[in-house]
Amino acid sequence: MNQILLIDCLDQKGLVYNITKQVYGRNLNIISNQEFVDTDSGHFFMRTVVEGNNLDDAFLRSLKAVLPDGANIRLTAIKKRPIVILATKEPHCLGDLLLRNAYGELPCDVKAVVSNHATLQSLAVSFGIPFHHIPVEGMSRIEHEDKVSECIQGYSPDFLVLAKYMRVFSPEFVTKYPSRIINIHHSFLPAFAGASPYRQAFERGVKIIGATSHFVTDQLDEGPIISQNVIPVNHTFSADGMAQAGRDIEKNVLAAALKLVLEERVFIFRDKTVVFE
Amino acid sequence: MNQILLIDCLDQKGLVYNITKQVYGRNLNIISNQEFVDTDSGHFFMRTVVEGNNLDDAFLRSLKAVLPDGANIRLTAIKKRPIVILATKEPHCLGDLLLRNAYGELPCDVKAVVSNHATLQSLAVSFGIPFHHIPVEGMSRIEHEDKVSECIQGYSPDFLVLAKYMRVFSPEFVTKYPSRIINIHHSFLPAFAGASPYRQAFERGVKIIGATSHFVTDQLDEGPIISQNVIPVNHTFSADGMAQAGRDIEKNVLAAALKLVLEERVFIFRDKTVVFE
Amino acid sequence: MNQILLIDCLDQKGLVYNITKQVYGRNLNIISNQEFVDTDSGHFFMRTVVEGNNLDDAFLRSLKAVLPDGANIRLTAIKKRPIVILATKEPHCLGDLLLRNAYGELPCDVKAVVSNHATLQSLAVSFGIPFHHIPVEGMSRIEHEDKVSECIQGYSPDFLVLAKYMRVFSPEFVTKYPSRIINIHHSFLPAFAGASPYRQAFERGVKIIGATSHFVTDQLDEGPIISQNVIPVNHTFSADGMAQAGRDIEKNVLAAALKLVLEERVFIFRDKTVVFE
Amino acid sequence: MNQILLIDCLDQKGLVYNITKQVYGRNLNIISNQEFVDTDSGHFFMRTVVEGNNLDDAFLRSLKAVLPDGANIRLTAIKKRPIVILATKEPHCLGDLLLRNAYGELPCDVKAVVSNHATLQSLAVSFGIPFHHIPVEGMSRIEHEDKVSECIQGYSPDFLVLAKYMRVFSPEFVTKYPSRIINIHHSFLPAFAGASPYRQAFERGVKIIGATSHFVTDQLDEGPIISQNVIPVNHTFSADGMAQAGRDIEKNVLAAALKLVLEERVFIFRDKTVVFE
Repeated sequence: MNQILLIDCLDQKGLVYNITKQVYGRNLNIISNQEFVDTDSGHFFMRTVVEGNNLDDAFLRSLKAVLPDGANIRLTAIKKRPIVILATKEPHCLGDLLLRNAYGELPCDVKAVVSNHATLQSLAVSFGIPFHHIPVEGMSRIEHEDKVSECIQGYSPDFLVLAKYMRVFSPEFVTKYPSRIINIHHSFLPAFAGASPYRQAFERGVKIIGATSHFVTDQLDEGPIISQNVIPVNHTFSADGMAQAGRDIEKNVLAAALKLVLEERVFIFRDKTVVFE
Repeated sequence: MNQILLIDCLDQKGLVYNITKQVYGRNLNIISNQEFVDTDSGHFFMRTVVEGNNLDDAFLRSLKAVLPDGANIRLTAIKKRPIVILATKEPHCLGDLLLRNAYGELPCDVKAVVSNHATLQSLAVSFGIPFHHIPVEGMSRIEHEDKVSECIQGYSPDFLVLAKYMRVFSPEFVTKYPSRIINIHHSFLPAFAGASPYRQAFERGVKIIGATSHFVTDQLDEGPIISQNVIPVNHTFSADGMAQAGRDIEKNVLAAALKLVLEERVFIFRDKTVVFE
Repeated sequence: MNQILLIDCLDQKGLVYNITKQVYGRNLNIISNQEFVDTDSGHFFMRTVVEGNNLDDAFLRSLKAVLPDGANIRLTAIKKRPIVILATKEPHCLGDLLLRNAYGELPCDVKAVVSNHATLQSLAVSFGIPFHHIPVEGMSRIEHEDKVSECIQGYSPDFLVLAKYMRVFSPEFVTKYPSRIINIHHSFLPAFAGASPYRQAFERGVKIIGATSHFVTDQLDEGPIISQNVIPVNHTFSADGMAQAGRDIEKNVLAAALKLVLEERVFIFRDKTVVFE
Repeated sequence: MNQILLIDCLDQKGLVYNITKQVYGRNLNIISNQEFVDTDSGHFFMRTVVEGNNLDDAFLRSLKAVLPDGANIRLTAIKKRPIVILATKEPHCLGDLLLRNAYGELPCDVKAVVSNHATLQSLAVSFGIPFHHIPVEGMSRIEHEDKVSECIQGYSPDFLVLAKYMRVFSPEFVTKYPSRIINIHHSFLPAFAGASPYRQAFERGVKIIGATSHFVTDQLDEGPIISQNVIPVNHTFSADGMAQAGRDIEKNVLAAALKLVLEERVFIFRDKTVVFE
């Protein structure tokens, strides 16, 4: 088993030297090392994969001592991470994630599927995943979110994945999972934010449509973008035809973004991401 | 030499039969035939390439007799079309079009280059194309546009191509060239309309940038889209880096759109295009 | 319900007129019409979607009378087509097809999954699809193919889909399903035909990898290509990493090709396809 | 002015630490740092951009002392590099490079254009670049190459760029410019190596065509690949149509590869490249 070390801090001379000195001092082998300096903000980012499982709290303390104040350090072992998926009625993203989960294509362990509809129950069950139907009828938004939250907490997930979950969360809900909710939006954001993006794309007559996976913040469709992809369309596509064609990239973009997050390749910095592919 | 016949009208039964009957009655060979029906609006589009040069006014009259009222019919011979290019300071789109023009890659004949700056004069001259520098200093917008318009009129162009012309035309100017001004916008519209799209893209942290070629209408960046393309970017791209990377697709998208227009493959219908590729 | 009419024949003047005359004579509405003439061979292709279900044998006879000798005419109702999927051990293509089948994304009805291994049994069963394990051990190739063939015949499929079926069929087997076996090859053919294409791609150091869906003929990896797609890779990809990255396009390319075939958009002509998208 | 340090050597523990220690010991700021370890071969690659111009021979000696035997070290200042372009009759790649050269889009200085035909003389001259027409008529291959070589030597170029130069060099010629000749091949190698790739692609009926830029070795079309790109085609493309469509990617791929080489982002290792984008 290997470990991943993520560091971001104010840039200064000698950072790479000082960090790798600590690792070398432990006689550990660096398998992969990536750095980036955002020159506008003078901020430094580094992702290091270290062989073995020997980095400990003492190491982190010695590392902190050579880094500028306010440095963020994250040390993770490479392992399967628990996640919970939320979906509504559309099966393509959920089905794709469950397939990948079942066959080890993603380093995660899907603990449960939660939905505001019963539609996808049989799909989840066919993969042996617990399914929780939490309808919104007769409840306030806050009551519904509390129920969802309670259900999720039982699984202690590292990440929530919104696989075409067609409800908007309140800022209060989002705050409970800072930088830990991943959404797929069915347009090439910031084009066609909000409702019915394929209808909007059809009306505008675009020649390319897209999908965007991003972290959820309390600003709708404004969270840091992790991954995007597009496909060509033309005048023969109806809005429904665009929606159908878009499903292939929606599921692939969501899976790609989730993989990047699970492999600890993504830093969130202000409203954007630094992604070490 | 061949002829291109473009027809659009309300859809009804027997249109293809009735149209091809007229062509067959003249004993002419159809080289290529494309149709499309917009089912939302019930509108029919057809592009037919006919061998030879024998379609005449009498043919058009007999054709009109079998089509619904209000049908649009356009008959064009395949030949080089006169165009005028407007540019400002950036050479990549202009240079690319002049190269393609010089080596016969586009069925057009660039008559002149008009600019509000002198920067690109030597580029135009090196390709033997007249260059007109019409500075804006000391003139009102209307006065400047009148000068530009007067200069253009001398060349009787079929199309105006805005190859990174960084000024916005007044509705009065646009009205003079209905459906005949082709622009390249350096973003994936409708994302990042308006000024500084690469700066906007950088601020938003998108993972893909694009370029859009469209007809100019009196609504800024809202005209019917002809062609779009995109390239991936990431966190290592500054706004300037995005601008640099974007140039390759800007010039290719503009050239592709212009080729489609020159080959009479584009219908404008309401705010969108039907493009028979 | 609508009907699809596919015609291919030697090109001659008046074909579109003569064909649409027959349709108009029946007072039927053409929803969509696409033609193509291969100028090298002088061969004509046409795909017409006609409203309703009224085209019958009498119509086909009257149509044949106005077409050149040797014309191929195919009339199909738009409906779900029975297919059988063959797979070996890899779940991504099979799982993707089963998901699309279950949720109506493809106009087909998967009747059974046949495999030379038991690995994918639970996947098929979880979607309620019969699974037949036909091991090769202790059998000659011909004996095995006979068993497979016998099993398939019970389902009378219109098409066989090889979803990463890792065995090569004998010409005798292929002859039983002319133009009806669809394969996915995990490379951008004709690059890396044969075994271990990702290993070959890795060794060659290519910067893009691809997937190809094609009809199976008795020439290995030489059948008419239906659809292809690619993704970028770089020096950080191992052969395994390429294989993993390639799965996303393999499944999408196979599903796209199958959709084109099921919707009767594909003509096979000599060693190539004409695809009306 | 900044410096670029390229190191490749056998991998061992502490390399990043030992290298950055030397840089830090000089009190220099690292602007960018990229590493890669090829795990199959156990080979280490690192590209470091250091602020300023202070790395000297003494530094290189101290660096060599901490690296394994046989390490390759290359230190380059970031500046415009002299190149010579060879072309034959097609203007699109040459014209594109001359435009980029004229407007500072590439960190190079085109010293001359050499051709076996006179066709492109006016194009080179219009950009103020010396043009040398060296016809092959009445000469042996070796005699011609000697003349070309003599002409090139007068310009002492760092790199030769084959911008659709349609002759194959002898191994003797190639040996004079090890890892310094960059070619554009008009196919997605290794598909369609050799002559007439678009004709081959047309015959095979592929749905995507490509272009490949690679270093020239004494094995035709087998040199290390730097960059590749593709575009979709379909049955309506003739071989000529594919050639025309392919020009846009040929020129962009060649320019992209040249940019990578000029910016010292490319390592050649055995038959492949490591490219730090």
